[in-house]
Amino acid sequence: MPEPSDDRGPVEQLPVAFDDPAYREAVVDLLGALAYGELTAFDRLAEDSTTAPDTADKAELAAMACAEFGHFTRLRDQLGRLGADPYLAMEPFKETFDRFHAKTTPRNWLESLIKAYVGDGLASDFYREVAAYLDEQTRMLILEVLEDSGHSAFAVERVRSAIAADPRVGGVLALWGRRLVGEALSQAQVVASERDSLAALLAGGVDRPGMDLAAIGRMFARLTENHAKRMASLGLSA
Amino acid sequence: MPEPSDDRGPVEQLPVAFDDPAYREAVVDLLGALAYGELTAFDRLAEDSTTAPDTADKAELAAMACAEFGHFTRLRDQLGRLGADPYLAMEPFKETFDRFHAKTTPRNWLESLIKAYVGDGLASDFYREVAAYLDEQTRMLILEVLEDSGHSAFAVERVRSAIAADPRVGGVLALWGRRLVGEALSQAQVVASERDSLAALLAGGVDRPGMDLAAIGRMFARLTENHAKRMASLGLSA
Repeated sequence: MPEPSDDRGPVEQLPVAFDDPAYREAVVDLLGALAYGELTAFDRLAEDSTTAPDTADKAELAAMACAEFGHFTRLRDQLGRLGADPYLAMEPFKETFDRFHAKTTPRNWLESLIKAYVGDGLASDFYREVAAYLDEQTRMLILEVLEDSGHSAFAVERVRSAIAADPRVGGVLALWGRRLVGEALSQAQVVASERDSLAALLAGGVDRPGMDLAAIGRMFARLTENHAKRMASLGLSA
Repeated sequence: MPEPSDDRGPVEQLPVAFDDPAYREAVVDLLGALAYGELTAFDRLAEDSTTAPDTADKAELAAMACAEFGHFTRLRDQLGRLGADPYLAMEPFKETFDRFHAKTTPRNWLESLIKAYVGDGLASDFYREVAAYLDEQTRMLILEVLEDSGHSAFAVERVRSAIAADPRVGGVLALWGRRLVGEALSQAQVVASERDSLAALLAGGVDRPGMDLAAIGRMFARLTENHAKRMASLGLSA
């Protein structure tokens, strides 16, 4: 049983799955990645809000940023409950997320909106897939944290009306969407190859079902399909 | 009676003070200024969080940013209840706040913390003074929104330990504190001179007590005194 964090008072009962140290390590890795991802999402949305065309739009993006920060705090607190140092748990994923954002800095307001909508959508889908292999407590937390807080309707509406006003922007934005998904997948691959615990989690164990190569292939097919749907809802080809 | 905003359903009863159109105008001005101030505080804290020395400190500043954004949404909603367009109400104050922030861009992490603590403290004191002249509903909202959410202890602790580690930084940071208060007062003066409604609010009316010049002088004395106390708690001379 890991040490509870200092401020929790009585020891909370963790699901039995955590008796396996490899499982615990994998969950700490996953929540660390997710938490750091939420924190950088806060960062990026807050920064992008400064390019908003007016104060009302700026407030919309700021609201999205703060929603992501709220998710961050929940994940950080759960890491504490697992007896992990939350910031140490995030550390291994900093470079990957920072690299992703450095390579996908939006050049304008519309690119920011697409990144918020398409990028978060893809990440959510991925974490949801992984959550299916976790104990119920962790799975519920992840699903709650990933729940769309209704902000994406705003991004879709803004991008669609910009394309309606000037159909030529559609081509450039479609390229942007493709670049986002390409970078996201290549960074995800780096994480999977560097963190054995996460790869092991997906592969399963004697007592836990996992994904074989065919299942991983099907997962990627689902991710790409959902991505194409999101692009279509923006009025863009995937 | 002003029109209620579209999404409110039944008309809410506004305090009787709002029967006076000049009073309503002054409150809309005041809440507009306060709301835009909170939104720029969000902006600035979010941006400053990117210079944090580590992820834990970054999260502290991000939490402060999101607290300010929460205040912003409450003020924006109250403007809607008063029948005002919240973003139009903020418009007259944009230039002043943007100028203040442009003139007081922190050069490093410690300057960011001092600006967050000293700047917000001064602004809070000022709005609290003004709130004393308002109807109870508006006054309670302002006081709630200004309540310190416990984040300032963090800033104080970090600045004090930086000075303990290297006492020479104290001199530079003391200058920074003086510059902040000077800029804040000079921007406040611009607002007061441009917005007749706010000046009239402070001056009072036949049925409302107001501030004479002596009272305004005493208010400034209180503001400066509290500022000096904050600087002292940081270990800096005012």
